[in-house]
Amino acid sequence: MVQFFEAHKDTLFQAVKTSKARDYWSAYPEIASGKIYGETAKDDQAAEFEALMDKPFALGQPTNGNWVGAETSPYGKALGVTYEDASVEDVIAASKAAGKSWASASVEDRVGVALEMLNRVNKKSFLIANAVMHTSGQAFMMAFQAGGPHAQDRGLEAVAYAYDAMTQTPKEVTWTKPQGKHDPIVLDKKFRVVPRGVALVIGCATFPTWNTYPGMFASMVTGNSVIIKPHPMAILPMAITIQIGREVLKEAGFDPNVLMLAADTADNPKTKGFVSSEEVNIIDFTGSNTFGQWVRDNAGNAQVYTEEAGVNAITIHSTDNLRGMASNIAFSLSLYSGQMCTTPQNIFVPRDGIETNDGKKSFEEVAEAIKVSLDKLLGDPARAAAILGAVQNPTTLDRIFAAGKLGKLIRSSEPVEGMNGARSATPTVVAVDSKNEEAYMQERFGPISFIIACDDIDDAIARAAGSAKSHGAITAALYSTSEDVIDKAVDAYAWAGAPLSVNLTGNIYVNQSAAYSDFHVTGANPAGNASLTDGAYVANRFRIATVRRQAAVG
Amino acid sequence: MVQFFEAHKDTLFQAVKTSKARDYWSAYPEIASGKIYGETAKDDQAAEFEALMDKPFALGQPTNGNWVGAETSPYGKALGVTYEDASVEDVIAASKAAGKSWASASVEDRVGVALEMLNRVNKKSFLIANAVMHTSGQAFMMAFQAGGPHAQDRGLEAVAYAYDAMTQTPKEVTWTKPQGKHDPIVLDKKFRVVPRGVALVIGCATFPTWNTYPGMFASMVTGNSVIIKPHPMAILPMAITIQIGREVLKEAGFDPNVLMLAADTADNPKTKGFVSSEEVNIIDFTGSNTFGQWVRDNAGNAQVYTEEAGVNAITIHSTDNLRGMASNIAFSLSLYSGQMCTTPQNIFVPRDGIETNDGKKSFEEVAEAIKVSLDKLLGDPARAAAILGAVQNPTTLDRIFAAGKLGKLIRSSEPVEGMNGARSATPTVVAVDSKNEEAYMQERFGPISFIIACDDIDDAIARAAGSAKSHGAITAALYSTSEDVIDKAVDAYAWAGAPLSVNLTGNIYVNQSAAYSDFHVTGANPAGNASLTDGAYVANRFRIATVRRQAAVG
Repeated sequence: MVQFFEAHKDTLFQAVKTSKARDYWSAYPEIASGKIYGETAKDDQAAEFEALMDKPFALGQPTNGNWVGAETSPYGKALGVTYEDASVEDVIAASKAAGKSWASASVEDRVGVALEMLNRVNKKSFLIANAVMHTSGQAFMMAFQAGGPHAQDRGLEAVAYAYDAMTQTPKEVTWTKPQGKHDPIVLDKKFRVVPRGVALVIGCATFPTWNTYPGMFASMVTGNSVIIKPHPMAILPMAITIQIGREVLKEAGFDPNVLMLAADTADNPKTKGFVSSEEVNIIDFTGSNTFGQWVRDNAGNAQVYTEEAGVNAITIHSTDNLRGMASNIAFSLSLYSGQMCTTPQNIFVPRDGIETNDGKKSFEEVAEAIKVSLDKLLGDPARAAAILGAVQNPTTLDRIFAAGKLGKLIRSSEPVEGMNGARSATPTVVAVDSKNEEAYMQERFGPISFIIACDDIDDAIARAAGSAKSHGAITAALYSTSEDVIDKAVDAYAWAGAPLSVNLTGNIYVNQSAAYSDFHVTGANPAGNASLTDGAYVANRFRIATVRRQAAVG
Repeated sequence: MVQFFEAHKDTLFQAVKTSKARDYWSAYPEIASGKIYGETAKDDQAAEFEALMDKPFALGQPTNGNWVGAETSPYGKALGVTYEDASVEDVIAASKAAGKSWASASVEDRVGVALEMLNRVNKKSFLIANAVMHTSGQAFMMAFQAGGPHAQDRGLEAVAYAYDAMTQTPKEVTWTKPQGKHDPIVLDKKFRVVPRGVALVIGCATFPTWNTYPGMFASMVTGNSVIIKPHPMAILPMAITIQIGREVLKEAGFDPNVLMLAADTADNPKTKGFVSSEEVNIIDFTGSNTFGQWVRDNAGNAQVYTEEAGVNAITIHSTDNLRGMASNIAFSLSLYSGQMCTTPQNIFVPRDGIETNDGKKSFEEVAEAIKVSLDKLLGDPARAAAILGAVQNPTTLDRIFAAGKLGKLIRSSEPVEGMNGARSATPTVVAVDSKNEEAYMQERFGPISFIIACDDIDDAIARAAGSAKSHGAITAALYSTSEDVIDKAVDAYAWAGAPLSVNLTGNIYVNQSAAYSDFHVTGANPAGNASLTDGAYVANRFRIATVRRQAAVG
């Protein structure tokens, strides 16, 4: 325990420091290199992944003896992995029981367990990449980065924020109040971090680790026992993570049920049972606005942290790099087939066109430039597959088909050549008038974008920021060469509570959110009520119990 | 604005420092001395108070032309003060409109306004003392301290926590991500604190300023516009505070409607209208558990911070200072006629008695010692009046009467001689068996205590901490000479989430909660979901909007 904290404390302190400085830093290399992760790691862990297929995955949790699980890879095959089944009540009871000694452990012991767990999870990044790829549909390299090191960095960031919050208050103090000519009143005070109790983390199918680690680690290190309820289509990445966590807990002398998996299937879901339980004190949720609202309404007195969804927008006013802009947008729309919560959906463009380095371009020419960039980017099937990955949910394909009919089709979605057995779809792009809000003023999840003709740039900014305020947004982008326009957009998005990226034309994309620097989700619009991660994300997961003892009295 | 911040920043920084060190400190002297506050301040401000009686109190707020208010002093006379009336919708609309420029002000400008406001409020501590006395019923000296400097310190503490939270993130940073042999990716990032919107603070009748200032200042400095909905029987202390705040806001160039009063009467209450409004984004509430639950259930997506109520307990195992213990308890039960949220109600004592410095004492002897101490403390009517003050709510008298019949009457409540026209009542003390949970396992607000005969000390601790966990507790006390017993109680109360005071025998009481050092309410049991003040109390009142701009791309 203490040795875990000692072993990793420099990493922790650097994470705390960086979360306040907000410059670039990473504890876990994003380069899937044999030099870093070991020359045989990629192959070894691919084999390890294959060996998990078509078998029960035992965590040693309390079970009713049944096995559940029905994951199918978006690349085609059923995983055939099953997990220990147990009732909601039994899982919560085991979690509560395990939480007792965990709650009274020191901050350093708990943080040490989390740091060691992250370290071991990092070493299994290739295994987790395979599991993320074959549940979410992400292409391998993205599954490695986003499911591995980037998720681990987000986890460490949560540990860092929680550690910082818990150590703002000293463990003890002597309080001395002067009493004029009399002796002072002296009290010895001790402050102890106490957890809320049982924490639940509800994961999603598209980013099964990245979106689950922050809540899991934030709740764990603050002393709560944690139940992970992954999406029924993306259990394995968290099962692997939890297995590692339970090993570390055991080695540190804790009941491994401090961290439990609650697997279920779409046919027999458990989430509502957990959310409704009065024994659950903290809930982290990633998912739709509809279910998010249900969670918020039915969580009772539990603290609820949500990442839901929104309609992310790009507003185009002018650019000094038309080609760079169009390429950048094309990549943003394509990455993981538009299935990122950060993917732009709506592109607002003045109907009488924009100024560019290449002269005035009409609305139609802007739309065409984006289409051409998409065609170029995805022209080579191998590259297309590496960027797009596979489509996680079959219903997304229906949505793509329906979206094509909502306006003028600029680019139609096609499957990717050679991705045998996988669900694949390139982006569809549809031009609509700004009056056609029915088309674009709702989230249409997947590789679906609208290029929206607006009256002018003020109208465009008002609609883009307004939709963020009313329907939520996790990202926003603006292209403009005018500082006045940029200032207007900055103010509009501050009001709408969405982070704004300005004039991205190179190898950095609006979709990307960097740990320790970018606040992912603001918590200030309907796309979520919390940020992963900031002070508010951790501060209320624990409370402080004080003991004061009279030392001397005036 | 900036000059306000500059003028008071040393006070702010000291408050931030002390809130992390948690030693004693105060920005606002609690001694009602002419040397500190000005030799004529007491008389001048008493006259100022009298001049407010039987008149409309105009704040210059939007109004429908009507005047509301029906405050009556627990010391006898009707105040006759009325306040501008307006509909819930109109108040919220004015608040929202005022909030726009307030939201975009700098952190330093907003904090400067709050610090200047506190400074001017402090100078009016005698005026506020009169207003607090003649609404809450507190005796003058307590009204001065708790309603004046102590409330101001709690307000400053909230400003300090909020300032510290808002300044954890830099205003801007250059983010540089290395790209191996290529040029790094460089983004210029700006981080702006954005508020949630409109904040509501619902006050109580017993501590109209102390319980209102923390939420008011925390919401204000984080950029929200604030509507104060005081208890209909205790409007004036907040009206005076708000008047000062609106003056400072105007001087700083802001719309004074950033801070508004929403006065109402018991016959025509407005609270539910404000709570139910979707335009209200933050709610601070002080009041009963029943109404607190209603607020939590009906606040929609607003952030809710509550201080509700509980059953505070003292557990007696043994003491090396029987007389000191009994006197200390007697004072705790008497102060402000037991109307503090921190007043102990239940005193758990083993039925076969306790060990003391004066030998073994039976259960009956312990009860008698407390009775005798109460009689001594309150024997002189002038001193009794100065300690007890008046009873705020007439229904409390009925409750005292009813409580006397719930067990064996140890001491009966009596009015205080010479308090003409005031509602006064000395503490009633009733002995009951621990099985009689119907008597003691609910809050019986006012000067009502139970001495409860338990099987043994383990039973006593289990019942005391158990009641905190199930019914809430804001304070707890223990008397024991055994370190083993103290350890047990410390663990039990950490689990129950209540602060524990051990062996207080001198001039310091379990009721007292010191700013910057004691966390008032833990947020970990049903007595409230938040602490006044800690990191969690401020962190979620604002969010961060980021703008990132491409500087260079690898």
